[in-house]
Amino acid sequence: MAKLTVLTGITTTGTPHLGNYAGAIRPAVDASRRGDANSFYFLADYHALVKRQDPAAVHQSTLEIAAAWLAMGLDPSKVIFYRQSDIPEILELTWILTSVTAKGLMNRAHAYKASVQANQDAGNQDPDKGVMMSLFCYPILMAADILMFGTHQVPVGRDQKQHVEMARDIAQRFNHVYEELFVVPEAIIDDNTAVLSGLDGRKMSKSYDNTIPLFAPEKRLRKLIMKIKTNSLEPGEPKETEGSTLFEIYRAFATEQQTAALAQCYAEGIAWGEAKQLLFEFLNEMLSGPRDEYERLIADPGYIENVLKEGAVKAREIATPFTARVRHAVGIRPLG
Amino acid sequence: MAKLTVLTGITTTGTPHLGNYAGAIRPAVDASRRGDANSFYFLADYHALVKRQDPAAVHQSTLEIAAAWLAMGLDPSKVIFYRQSDIPEILELTWILTSVTAKGLMNRAHAYKASVQANQDAGNQDPDKGVMMSLFCYPILMAADILMFGTHQVPVGRDQKQHVEMARDIAQRFNHVYEELFVVPEAIIDDNTAVLSGLDGRKMSKSYDNTIPLFAPEKRLRKLIMKIKTNSLEPGEPKETEGSTLFEIYRAFATEQQTAALAQCYAEGIAWGEAKQLLFEFLNEMLSGPRDEYERLIADPGYIENVLKEGAVKAREIATPFTARVRHAVGIRPLG
Repeated sequence: MAKLTVLTGITTTGTPHLGNYAGAIRPAVDASRRGDANSFYFLADYHALVKRQDPAAVHQSTLEIAAAWLAMGLDPSKVIFYRQSDIPEILELTWILTSVTAKGLMNRAHAYKASVQANQDAGNQDPDKGVMMSLFCYPILMAADILMFGTHQVPVGRDQKQHVEMARDIAQRFNHVYEELFVVPEAIIDDNTAVLSGLDGRKMSKSYDNTIPLFAPEKRLRKLIMKIKTNSLEPGEPKETEGSTLFEIYRAFATEQQTAALAQCYAEGIAWGEAKQLLFEFLNEMLSGPRDEYERLIADPGYIENVLKEGAVKAREIATPFTARVRHAVGIRPLG
Repeated sequence: MAKLTVLTGITTTGTPHLGNYAGAIRPAVDASRRGDANSFYFLADYHALVKRQDPAAVHQSTLEIAAAWLAMGLDPSKVIFYRQSDIPEILELTWILTSVTAKGLMNRAHAYKASVQANQDAGNQDPDKGVMMSLFCYPILMAADILMFGTHQVPVGRDQKQHVEMARDIAQRFNHVYEELFVVPEAIIDDNTAVLSGLDGRKMSKSYDNTIPLFAPEKRLRKLIMKIKTNSLEPGEPKETEGSTLFEIYRAFATEQQTAALAQCYAEGIAWGEAKQLLFEFLNEMLSGPRDEYERLIADPGYIENVLKEGAVKAREIATPFTARVRHAVGIRPLG
């Protein structure tokens, strides 16, 4: 049986944190190791422009995120790992898809509607105040990312499901109007994917400033873990695991046996300081190898650049001839 | 003094007719011969997708329009004559500009507003019914066309002025947010440009089906001219030149002296049949040389393809390094 094609996009904003690892990097790297699919992983740097107009931050984030995925075990010899902006065909396809995308479809996009709602809530006369065309159009760019490689499955969080549905819609319309060129993709939603809590107990997210960076140096890692919000129960008092951020983070990475052992400590009234020290030691051991690798990679950006360039060569072996077929289908053809 | 850069886009829909020649091709070719500017002429085939979802028609029109401009004297050794779709950087720039284009700006575009109005007039609940994203976004593509080459001046009809103003707006915003990379272009509107009447007296336009194809074979040319609408004045009765489509078409291409001579014939009561024969002979003489050249070119599409490919090489000598600068400015940079 032919392998399925699976594609994962990684927006290059921010510095990778433990939540990204648990929710995105780890499941994706695990999947890539199974070897049962043609796996595409790409750094979505053109998507980053939708969110950030800070060139140095976009550039730095691309470096850090590429290094993080490699350090965490993504093997570029087993998957196609590339940077979106190295594949100019994706932008050509984006324009071609623009001509088969109904504006009404984009009007219904969650991210756009949220901006309109925010304007209405703020009492702004203009519902589109501050809305850029990149926010409005990026589902088309995402459709191009997906449709370029004949993707069957796109593993996404529930909040991204609509984008895959839009890509389906766009693919179907093109196939109907022009030629059956596009695989109609499917969103794969894993509701078991860990959503990690941050230092303050809310979802770990850059926007809450409550993250534990994946590659924080040892001292800083310890300091952050000591900051995790707990309740005021004294040492010796039994503690609930339910609702304990500390316990949740531990459980996200520990074996069942380890988790049961910590639950036992909770029941026996482990002091918060002791529990934090235990979590720190556990994470530090888990992360020290990847952290060394990450530091090595960050210090050698030329190596990462080469990895991405090699990935782009592989991706373009597909993208270049496929785009030529798409161009031909719409009438963009050599004259001779 | 440095030469100005002037850019002219030619949408590849339809078959070129006399109205296109008088209104667009002739003034542009004349300007290119003056040699006082760096002139860029491009076949806007990605724009054609906004209007036509008919691959064979888009392809055929590209061939015919390229052949028409060459047959009418555009000298590809003196100007940069290329096909938009041969410059992938234009689509990259389009996306980058999308991130500095306010949605509110596109909401105000005439073509989009006309579609919304048409829906309202038709009583459609959804103002965006049938509106594709390409219609909504094409001012951004046009801005990329213009801004890519440091264009100072864009000669356009009055109906296209808004697009150049939008390109100005987008350029200024990019220059402000990121880096002063874009020349802010200016629309050059020539109100003296001939608008030719068609066979039925309305503006000559494909949409009215009243055109005289520029390279109609001799017999067909004569037949079409004989169809030009006139009034019922008999031979011998003096005729008004004002409002006479026949006279207008003649005047658009004749010298002042020739025009005065025809006016004299009108005053003296020339028969319509005779006047039509006179116009036919005049146009046939004017067009027979270019028609032969056009036929030769149409029969040799490989030659045109080469001309366009050579133009693309010249255009990309500018587009490739310039796009690299734009990418760098927004943070899309090599890591090494």
